[in-house]
Amino acid sequence: MATDRRRTILEGAARVIARHGVRGLRMETLATEAGVSTALIYYHFKDRAGTLRHTLEFISDRADRYTGDGGGEGGGGSTPGPHDARQELEQSLLLEFQELPEVRENSITWGELRASAIFEPELRGDLARATLTRIHDVADLLGRVRPTATAPALTASAERLTGLLEGLSTRWLSGALPLSHAHALVREAVALEIEHLSR
Amino acid sequence: MATDRRRTILEGAARVIARHGVRGLRMETLATEAGVSTALIYYHFKDRAGTLRHTLEFISDRADRYTGDGGGEGGGGSTPGPHDARQELEQSLLLEFQELPEVRENSITWGELRASAIFEPELRGDLARATLTRIHDVADLLGRVRPTATAPALTASAERLTGLLEGLSTRWLSGALPLSHAHALVREAVALEIEHLSR
Repeated sequence: MATDRRRTILEGAARVIARHGVRGLRMETLATEAGVSTALIYYHFKDRAGTLRHTLEFISDRADRYTGDGGGEGGGGSTPGPHDARQELEQSLLLEFQELPEVRENSITWGELRASAIFEPELRGDLARATLTRIHDVADLLGRVRPTATAPALTASAERLTGLLEGLSTRWLSGALPLSHAHALVREAVALEIEHLSR
Repeated sequence: MATDRRRTILEGAARVIARHGVRGLRMETLATEAGVSTALIYYHFKDRAGTLRHTLEFISDRADRYTGDGGGEGGGGSTPGPHDARQELEQSLLLEFQELPEVRENSITWGELRASAIFEPELRGDLARATLTRIHDVADLLGRVRPTATAPALTASAERLTGLLEGLSTRWLSGALPLSHAHALVREAVALEIEHLSR
C-alpha cells in the first residue's frame, strides 16, 4: 500500500519533469499530479532533493526494464557469447530511442535530471553514480564481445558510447534527429568501438 | 551605441541562463542583470522567444571566437593541409572544454538552450540550424583530413563527434568528468573516426 503510494508519486514526478523540467517540479504541482497531499510526499521523500533523487532511481529502474532484458532473442539465462553480447549491447543502446510515450518520457526526465545537476549540486552524487553504473554495464557487454581488451580501454569506449547516446538523445527529443538516423549513428559507433577494442 | 546596448543585453542573458537556466530567464531578471529597462529589451528583441534566439546566435558567435581560430599554430590564411586540418579539428573540439569562466558560461548556456528546445518548440528551428552549422564545420575539417571520404560518411562522423561533445559537456559541467579525461576521450574519438574514414 505504502509502496503503491510511493510509486504513484514517483510516476507523477517523472511526468511533471517530462512536461515542465526539473525546475517546474514544485511539491504542490506534484501533489496535484499524483493525487496525494504534499504532506505524504514529504513523509516518503523528506524534501524536494529527496524526491528528485528517488525519481532518478525510479526512472533508472524503469529504463532497465526496456533496455536491460535485451530483445528476448539473446536471452536464455547464462552468460551470452560474443555474438549475443554484441546484440545485447546494440539493443540496450538503441532501445533508448523508441517512439513510445514511456520511453520518451523517461528520456526527457533523465536528460533533465542530468542537465539540472549543473545547477543543483545536491543531485550530483546520485547522478554520477547512475552514470557510472550505466558505463560499467556497457563496458561489461563490450568486454564479453572483446574479452582480450583492457579494462581502461573498455571503460573509455563505454564512456564514449554512453556520452554519444546522451548527446544524440537531446537532438532526437527536440525533433532535430530522426529515430532511424539516430539508430544508424549509434550502430556505427558500436562497430567503431568494437573494431578499436580488437586492435 | 544601439549595438553596445544589444550586446550588453545578450551578455546579460547568457549570464542569467548560465546561472538559472532558460526557464529562469524572465524579462525583469534580465533587465536588472543588464541594467536596462524591460522596454528596451522588447524594443531590440520583440519578445522572450526573440531574446532566446538572439542569445543562441550570440553564444554561437562567441564560441567561434575561442574554437574557430585554432590555436594560432595551424593558421596562415590559406586552406590547411591534412595535418593542419586534423590539428585544427582537435583544437576546435577540445577548446569547448576549458576551465575559463567565459567558456564554462557559454557551454552551460548552450546546453541549456539545447535541452530547452524539447520544451520550447519555437527555439527548435534556430537550434537545429546552429547544430547543422557546427556539424558542417566539423565535416569540412574531416574532409580536409580525409579528402577521399564520401560526404555522407563525413557528415555521419561529424554528427557523432559533435553529439559526443554535447553528451560529455554535461558530464564535465556537473563535475562528473575531469577536464583532462574529457580531452582524452575526445582525442581518441577523433582518431577512431579518421581511421574509419580512411577505410
